[in-house]
Amino acid sequence: MRSRAAEYLGKAGILLGEREHESIEVADFGLGSLEKTGLQLMTYVNTPRYCAKDLVLFPGQTCAEHRHPPVGAGNPGKQETFRCRFGMVYLYVDGAATSHPQCRPPQGDEAFYTVWREIALKPGEQYTIPPDTKHWFQAGPDGAVVSEFSPHSLDGLDIFTDPRIVRAPLRG
Amino acid sequence: MRSRAAEYLGKAGILLGEREHESIEVADFGLGSLEKTGLQLMTYVNTPRYCAKDLVLFPGQTCAEHRHPPVGAGNPGKQETFRCRFGMVYLYVDGAATSHPQCRPPQGDEAFYTVWREIALKPGEQYTIPPDTKHWFQAGPDGAVVSEFSPHSLDGLDIFTDPRIVRAPLRG
Repeated sequence: MRSRAAEYLGKAGILLGEREHESIEVADFGLGSLEKTGLQLMTYVNTPRYCAKDLVLFPGQTCAEHRHPPVGAGNPGKQETFRCRFGMVYLYVDGAATSHPQCRPPQGDEAFYTVWREIALKPGEQYTIPPDTKHWFQAGPDGAVVSEFSPHSLDGLDIFTDPRIVRAPLRG
Repeated sequence: MRSRAAEYLGKAGILLGEREHESIEVADFGLGSLEKTGLQLMTYVNTPRYCAKDLVLFPGQTCAEHRHPPVGAGNPGKQETFRCRFGMVYLYVDGAATSHPQCRPPQGDEAFYTVWREIALKPGEQYTIPPDTKHWFQAGPDGAVVSEFSPHSLDGLDIFTDPRIVRAPLRG
């Protein structure tokens, strides 16, 4: 799966160093059906001050609904800027529901997808998700590559709507 | 110059939205010889918590030596992660001088280039510059595209070795 993810990065013109593809994280959120619900992440830097990643979604793959909660008194939670680099990504965030959304949640998991304001991003388009805001996203039929810029990333603290999901912490 | 910079972004597979190229910043550092000493910057996001840009250098172009000083008590200065996306960039930072460096400073300005630890980055390679550390960089013969990830960027506070340079602040 790591080399498949690296191929998708290549479709966005993104080259990895010689052994970098070994550090691509493949996340199935513990649900065991990666092609349906999952995400591949290449983290370039994650310091206490800032973080940059590229996210790969295979065709139709969904990143499950979650939010980034406040961390202590001074941190309102992770804000994220998503910038599409390849393919189409459909982002759903808390807010007024879009009347005819392009995507459906993974079959059988509909109960765990509760926010329906749709933001469709094609290459060269971006959107910033405020801290502590529920969101999920799904790739179009060609898959998608999305750059994510944010403060320090503490994925182990993410709160998922689906109670079966426990996100393993990323190496920091 | 903005459309030329957008062309170089394209060489790295980086697409801009419809009117985004209009926000590319062309910086000649007030020296009036952009091809020699200058930098083109496409800023995607710059919030109080994080910043992401792509830097374009035309062939042989040099970004003048500078550092990002501490800002108040809690901020040691801007740390930057440079990741090469296209071409070659030669980065020079404070530290043990490289014995046969690949680059020369812009002619006539040699006095203002004082750090000589060379880090050569090709696509897929990256380097993190610590806060408050003198650095400068120059593109190889094909030019270069470099992604820069950092905390909040306050370019107007940068301190240049060349006393003629006054960096205009970026819009925030």
